[in-house]
Amino acid sequence: MSETVKYVLDEARIPRAWYNISADLPAPLAPVLHPATREPVSADDLAPLFPRGVIEQELTTEREVEIPEPVRNAYRQWRPAPLYRARRLEKALDTPARIYYKYEGVSPAGSHKPNTALPQAFYNHAEGVRRITTETGAGQWGSSLALAGAMFDLDIEVFMVGVSYKQKPYRRAFMESFGARCIASPSQETAFGRSVLADNPASTGSLGIAIGEAVELAAQRDDTKYALGSVLNHVLLHQTVTGVEAMEQMAMADDYPDTVIACTGGGSNFAGIVFPFLGAALRGGPSVEAIAVEPLACPTLTRGQFAYDYGDSAQLTPLTKMHTLGSGFMPPGFHAGGLRYHGMAPQISHLKDLGYLDARAYDQLDCFAAGLEFARAEGIIPAPEANHAVKAVIEEAQGCRERGESKAILFNLCGHGNFDMQAYTDYLAGNLSDLGGSQVEAAMALSGLPSVER
Amino acid sequence: MSETVKYVLDEARIPRAWYNISADLPAPLAPVLHPATREPVSADDLAPLFPRGVIEQELTTEREVEIPEPVRNAYRQWRPAPLYRARRLEKALDTPARIYYKYEGVSPAGSHKPNTALPQAFYNHAEGVRRITTETGAGQWGSSLALAGAMFDLDIEVFMVGVSYKQKPYRRAFMESFGARCIASPSQETAFGRSVLADNPASTGSLGIAIGEAVELAAQRDDTKYALGSVLNHVLLHQTVTGVEAMEQMAMADDYPDTVIACTGGGSNFAGIVFPFLGAALRGGPSVEAIAVEPLACPTLTRGQFAYDYGDSAQLTPLTKMHTLGSGFMPPGFHAGGLRYHGMAPQISHLKDLGYLDARAYDQLDCFAAGLEFARAEGIIPAPEANHAVKAVIEEAQGCRERGESKAILFNLCGHGNFDMQAYTDYLAGNLSDLGGSQVEAAMALSGLPSVER
Repeated sequence: MSETVKYVLDEARIPRAWYNISADLPAPLAPVLHPATREPVSADDLAPLFPRGVIEQELTTEREVEIPEPVRNAYRQWRPAPLYRARRLEKALDTPARIYYKYEGVSPAGSHKPNTALPQAFYNHAEGVRRITTETGAGQWGSSLALAGAMFDLDIEVFMVGVSYKQKPYRRAFMESFGARCIASPSQETAFGRSVLADNPASTGSLGIAIGEAVELAAQRDDTKYALGSVLNHVLLHQTVTGVEAMEQMAMADDYPDTVIACTGGGSNFAGIVFPFLGAALRGGPSVEAIAVEPLACPTLTRGQFAYDYGDSAQLTPLTKMHTLGSGFMPPGFHAGGLRYHGMAPQISHLKDLGYLDARAYDQLDCFAAGLEFARAEGIIPAPEANHAVKAVIEEAQGCRERGESKAILFNLCGHGNFDMQAYTDYLAGNLSDLGGSQVEAAMALSGLPSVER
Repeated sequence: MSETVKYVLDEARIPRAWYNISADLPAPLAPVLHPATREPVSADDLAPLFPRGVIEQELTTEREVEIPEPVRNAYRQWRPAPLYRARRLEKALDTPARIYYKYEGVSPAGSHKPNTALPQAFYNHAEGVRRITTETGAGQWGSSLALAGAMFDLDIEVFMVGVSYKQKPYRRAFMESFGARCIASPSQETAFGRSVLADNPASTGSLGIAIGEAVELAAQRDDTKYALGSVLNHVLLHQTVTGVEAMEQMAMADDYPDTVIACTGGGSNFAGIVFPFLGAALRGGPSVEAIAVEPLACPTLTRGQFAYDYGDSAQLTPLTKMHTLGSGFMPPGFHAGGLRYHGMAPQISHLKDLGYLDARAYDQLDCFAAGLEFARAEGIIPAPEANHAVKAVIEEAQGCRERGESKAILFNLCGHGNFDMQAYTDYLAGNLSDLGGSQVEAAMALSGLPSVER
């Protein structure tokens, strides 16, 4: 057995600031537009949904945003998260590549999502908010916000995509264990939910529908705000705690990544690990190859358009310029619920458009095979989402072997697969198949984009 | 929100030795007897089942047993495990008690079990063994040995209690993800399994039956050994890595426990956290109150006899003197699969008999309520087994509040509940009830003890 190498930061070195890539963008982001006026939104426009502290972070171009002490303190429950050198995987692959992974599965929710759930709960609590509504697909985000609600004394209401609500009762129990309320979406609790059910009483929901319901409730009540688990600038900002720690840990390892890899759904996991390194490169530091990995069944960056679109199917949210498959896009069923969003974070979309990152897409069987290879070497079963990154890492490492190239590859193992054993059960039983591109073509053909003249 | 306080040992301080309480026992353990001759067993008698390295540890009275470097290295995947001061729980309970918990849920299997799975796999691998058989009830132990098999390149075959095999398919997927084979017990693969099925084709199995099957296979084949996840001296020894770390961490906190609490099934979790402190007391150090907590549905220490008994229902294992409910004891169904064993580790039984530890038993509803109170304060959902310890801790802390007593309470949070969401689902839905004592009485009346004259 090769050596386990783990780089652990002392607790005192939990980062004091998040890194904001908006400060270093070579060209500014396209403005976010109001869905009715199609004019750039102001902070006031966002106030019904988000607390002031969060809105400031959404709009700021300050490079370093201080992490409030109560948030650092709550992070301390599991942070700093370890960074590993994957020596056993390197050996199994017989590669000269140096493979590192940051492991975010050590959080109590099992993924990177609490990195933003905690500060969002903090800012809401600090401004007197009593209740936060949100949506969840596979359940990672809802679980994380439920945890944050327990930590910061807030009521949490989670609209869970109906099909997941039925298929993942354990996720619901996890949220309820922390005192959150979990509602199957579409529901009778909102006008939008009722309208969806009137059209289709058998609707099993979508992330877009659940967002529509959560936003509607938050907009109606003064004591209630909304929280989003990905896509927006402030969410990506919070996730950079991962990459900021990883930079220190790579220094402990006396190494620096040539390539940084992460899976992408809405983009927060990718931004969290990649942005601090990419920002350093943009400021003249060492260059870094950034690779975003997505499922072939929801190929936002690789096949979506870079255009203005809504964040939800209800078309209630502001319009953002991003890589999108259309807000009506319904991906075919596959086992990586965190990677099913129709859009991509505007910051990531913008950087992709400027040529600062690459994207690739894989079908699911290869990803599960890669995940099991990783598990048997490193002792951790990755979440199905993370398997996409693992697949790309293995492909890169194999390329290094073929070329005799020794480069450093860093990726974010954004969560463990312990909540995803149905997916592994299906895979091991041979009950999963690849999805190919045809179902995606069909789904894309159905989804129109709003016409925005800018 | 109160402050999160976490004591993290530097990696270099993973213990170099396990602590062996056999060196400090005030009176020697009763000998282990051969099931046929009823004479004390020799190392040779155990050789068909265990590798020599393990047998030496089973019998040694050396106080410090060196942890081999490859095992320390494998421990490094997640160790040293954190120790927390539960300030938020203290605040929620309004108690002057200082509550600390060691958290073993950070292991890749989610519990303390890999602490012994890894060294057992190491010694087998080092002696050329190709395959290890074992049994598992709820699945924690089988999962941990599967992980260890992947780390040390061994084939693992796990006989899983039939009813759990059906009810917990995700546990099976977890084991298979690491390359282990998982077989529902009773099975057609062993003579004992076939005989059980011949008597009762509908048998859903028991831990005792599964042990019988695993032992039978190991005894038959030269390349195959057996591994047990609790009860035996060497298993308890390996678990002391927990308590040895906790002693250092309590020193970091500049405190020392007055009371140490852990749940007990076969006893390895309890021994792991308690023995280093109890051993220090036996050698003249600070005295410590040790409290073992068990389920009312399997009250081995509180209601069992201290007598010679078999470790398995097949009555193939050696006889050990221990607190036991009888090897035929079948506990009523309850949601803490790791606490369903009919016996108790001989070392713990012996210390209980000598008056060095207390035991108490709780019914299940109080334990789940305690677990949720802990989760909402500390952010971690405990395993149902660990809830028993949490219940005792809360009771002790409430006593401190009533008496105005400030004492330090340390407990082992031996695993998280993320694999046990069915139990929480049932509890939250109001579908669980207390079991009372009557079912246990009935079960005990059916289970005889072998007559041993010593």
